[in-house]
Amino acid sequence: MSHEARVIVSTVNDLSELIRQFIHHLLPQNHPRAEIELLYRMMRDYPERGGKRIRGQLVLMSALAYGGRTEPLERVPGLELPMSGFMARAVPLASALELFQNWVLIHDDIEDESEERRGSPALHRIHGMALALNAGDALHVYMWEAVFQGPAEARAEFLETIHRTAEGQHMDLGWVAAERWDISPQDYLEMVRLKTAYYTVVAPLRLGMIAAGLTPDPRFLEAGLALGAAFQIRDDVLNLTADRLDYGKEIAGDLLEGKRTLMLLWWLERANPEQHEFFLKAMNKPRVDKSAQDMAQILEWLLSSGAPQHAMTVANAEAERGLHILEQALSDAPNGRAVKIILEQMRSLATRTH
Amino acid sequence: MSHEARVIVSTVNDLSELIRQFIHHLLPQNHPRAEIELLYRMMRDYPERGGKRIRGQLVLMSALAYGGRTEPLERVPGLELPMSGFMARAVPLASALELFQNWVLIHDDIEDESEERRGSPALHRIHGMALALNAGDALHVYMWEAVFQGPAEARAEFLETIHRTAEGQHMDLGWVAAERWDISPQDYLEMVRLKTAYYTVVAPLRLGMIAAGLTPDPRFLEAGLALGAAFQIRDDVLNLTADRLDYGKEIAGDLLEGKRTLMLLWWLERANPEQHEFFLKAMNKPRVDKSAQDMAQILEWLLSSGAPQHAMTVANAEAERGLHILEQALSDAPNGRAVKIILEQMRSLATRTH
Repeated sequence: MSHEARVIVSTVNDLSELIRQFIHHLLPQNHPRAEIELLYRMMRDYPERGGKRIRGQLVLMSALAYGGRTEPLERVPGLELPMSGFMARAVPLASALELFQNWVLIHDDIEDESEERRGSPALHRIHGMALALNAGDALHVYMWEAVFQGPAEARAEFLETIHRTAEGQHMDLGWVAAERWDISPQDYLEMVRLKTAYYTVVAPLRLGMIAAGLTPDPRFLEAGLALGAAFQIRDDVLNLTADRLDYGKEIAGDLLEGKRTLMLLWWLERANPEQHEFFLKAMNKPRVDKSAQDMAQILEWLLSSGAPQHAMTVANAEAERGLHILEQALSDAPNGRAVKIILEQMRSLATRTH
Repeated sequence: MSHEARVIVSTVNDLSELIRQFIHHLLPQNHPRAEIELLYRMMRDYPERGGKRIRGQLVLMSALAYGGRTEPLERVPGLELPMSGFMARAVPLASALELFQNWVLIHDDIEDESEERRGSPALHRIHGMALALNAGDALHVYMWEAVFQGPAEARAEFLETIHRTAEGQHMDLGWVAAERWDISPQDYLEMVRLKTAYYTVVAPLRLGMIAAGLTPDPRFLEAGLALGAAFQIRDDVLNLTADRLDYGKEIAGDLLEGKRTLMLLWWLERANPEQHEFFLKAMNKPRVDKSAQDMAQILEWLLSSGAPQHAMTVANAEAERGLHILEQALSDAPNGRAVKIILEQMRSLATRTH
């Protein structure tokens, strides 16, 4: 499949448009059988709901940071750059990482029994579980189509990233399935590093450097795990506290799903015996049987305990540590303008308040 | 990952053992975290339940048929052959195809709400839907690990095979979800060619030839689609008629799952209005609400209508057509002994009675 991008990149948001176009051309659209066209529409649904494509953008920014070694990127203001050379190697990888995120979200939404995704009903709420599960698998294969259009060195990176993400997801879901609440904050940190940090920060930084023809900096691992953990801890806090319209997710969805979060684990260690008992009784019910009143009570205790503030403090510490290591790692990169943008974006990702 | 096989292949069943060993070495076993070791055990579960590995065996037989061009395979009785040369290229592909079958079965069992797989509870009945879905995704990625250990030309074959299988699966599930029974026998044939024939016959024949360093014979497509359709039509019949102990699947599971089969569609075209109405009312219920009595009634009508015999006649015609084309295609292959075994195996697969 050939892809001719006509976009000129002059702002960071244009990188997202490059990815959108690549995915648009990669995924199939028409089929003589109406049934199979429905599958194609289902595969396009989540990618077309948009989102910020932060992971794909980070792949391209990392490629720009290192690609500057071979192409003069600073000749014009911003990052103006036609699609050529190493960017043609980077865009398939950035798009593949976004496709990874999208097929994983289809399956996550089924696993978590989520109602909504990006402000609309989750795919399995529209088409039923069976068709949505299968569409996630079909999209997974298109992720590999995209990977194969990038440099060969990226394959091992995708294998590693998906292995680790599946392991983190298994830990998270396994605690829910086993009704386990004897989880330490350290367990939680290990889980989110696997579940979130690999594919959100570690892999994008590495894939960009691979696209630029270089071997990934080993410091990206520690930096990415810290920044990714900061991102997920904040995401958990925002899930509980943010304004619905502002954020576009179900408020307190994590409570309904029984997600183990740093806030909950921290509060639970400090809850009095009555609260503890109330909590376990209310939480160890299937989602549909959970009472809104119970959830509101737990939410109130949680918010008034200082748990969100504590979680934010941990997130900030992880963010600062990650940014410090990342800054050192990127100090070798030839394109200082791209480095500056990456650090700003990572700071904003790991310290966002909405 | 390196794989040293110590098996000497002297019978066709030894080919299955080569695949078993490859998969055993490929999949991870130990992890410091007990939770993640559970994921690893879940990934190994279906592959270790055995099965005949007919698809993987066919990859290796096809490789032997064409690999004879470069290695003297007939120097000893049977197919005695140490793991070397082109077989080292074929075993990863054969194992990858078996891994494909296994991750697909994990997801199929969830989609179909199946109770059993190979005589034991389905994975999601043991561990819950969420963990099983995720384990299927994790196993999918190990399939690609295996593919990457084979020749590069095999990648496009896997992409194509999974695309077509997902499309066929979508057609099948989509008819159930939409409660559609206005499906023609021709629709059914198109569906099973996509859902079953590609990965059961077309892909194995092609992958073996790719492992032998050749371009796949274009006649494998038509031959494989016909043989695969014959296999699936028979599988549907056996699902309804075979003895439980002999077959190891839930009897009439397809009826409970609402599967559109050639038998059902043929009978439905001939059913009287009362039977037709009874059927639609009984079938368009969720699986859990279906009455055993209703299913027994439908089964009785179906069996006494001659529908299984009709389906077997169609299957036989497809099988003969497929075998004829396959025989022509394989007439070029240098290893006549391997060709003979492939044709026998395909005849037995497409005309089996239990």
